[in-house]
Amino acid sequence: MLYQLTQVQFQKMLKNLSVILNKGAAHAEAKKFDVAVLLNARLAPDQFPLIRQVQIACDSAKLGVARLIGEVDAAPKHTDTETTLAELQQRITETLDYLASVTEDQFAGAAERHISQPRWEGKYLFGSEFALQHAIPNVYFHITTAYAILRHNGVDVGKKDFLGQMDYKS
Amino acid sequence: MLYQLTQVQFQKMLKNLSVILNKGAAHAEAKKFDVAVLLNARLAPDQFPLIRQVQIACDSAKLGVARLIGEVDAAPKHTDTETTLAELQQRITETLDYLASVTEDQFAGAAERHISQPRWEGKYLFGSEFALQHAIPNVYFHITTAYAILRHNGVDVGKKDFLGQMDYKS
Repeated sequence: MLYQLTQVQFQKMLKNLSVILNKGAAHAEAKKFDVAVLLNARLAPDQFPLIRQVQIACDSAKLGVARLIGEVDAAPKHTDTETTLAELQQRITETLDYLASVTEDQFAGAAERHISQPRWEGKYLFGSEFALQHAIPNVYFHITTAYAILRHNGVDVGKKDFLGQMDYKS
Repeated sequence: MLYQLTQVQFQKMLKNLSVILNKGAAHAEAKKFDVAVLLNARLAPDQFPLIRQVQIACDSAKLGVARLIGEVDAAPKHTDTETTLAELQQRITETLDYLASVTEDQFAGAAERHISQPRWEGKYLFGSEFALQHAIPNVYFHITTAYAILRHNGVDVGKKDFLGQMDYKS
């Protein structure tokens, strides 16, 4: 289940993020303004702008999975220097490629793994707690915030873009 | 795991939502404006206002769990008539009380259950798909959007308020 929750669902959500960013670019083009205005938009003066929301969404997904499988050093490194939409999309692509490279077998033992982060000062969560209380909420938080910044700036996005396709059966 | 993902984590997130709404009320009080202004705020003219975001967050949590356990008619009914913060908090409380009443045993078979909604025109998802692709993203989407509306209107909320306490071990 942790595999489905993170490796699979994070890829879906990052692809949805990529789509709404392109909708933002199309909106900028139609309105004849620089898409960089959107990338640097935020909902409050002390909130991270869209570009940073995307970076953190990617990192939450990438490091969430990397920590769950106990291979944090194997995740691709990113230096947070993106300034253009093309660079942001490249970062999403590299994150997707990394996630796609992780197999279900690598999640063996993930639920019981002790997971920590530098800022936790030695404290840890079990893998299942880390996924449910930290990685998953963070990914959804930053993708929804990116969506909200686009929505606030007039981009024609809807909740269906956020949720993406469902695997409906009939 | 579906129990932890929904019954447990949804309660945590709705409690966090209750806290940030109260922070909104404190902000309104300090700035001497009617909290109803916040409750009716939105990020775009064609987006649901805060009050509706809270209603949908509650419904996504309540109906998500009720559908997973196959007892959708047992969930409390709400008529979406709340106009005050007290009424919204009451709705959150009733949703929390319902979630707390559901036991882990009731989730037996939830992952394989065929789950549908009226608007799906007879199509269905397996319970695990419904939780991962629909219920969980919806709950996070609407709580994050509520957070974003408060944040945009100057309320002093941070991501820690959104995530809530972690079960850190040392």
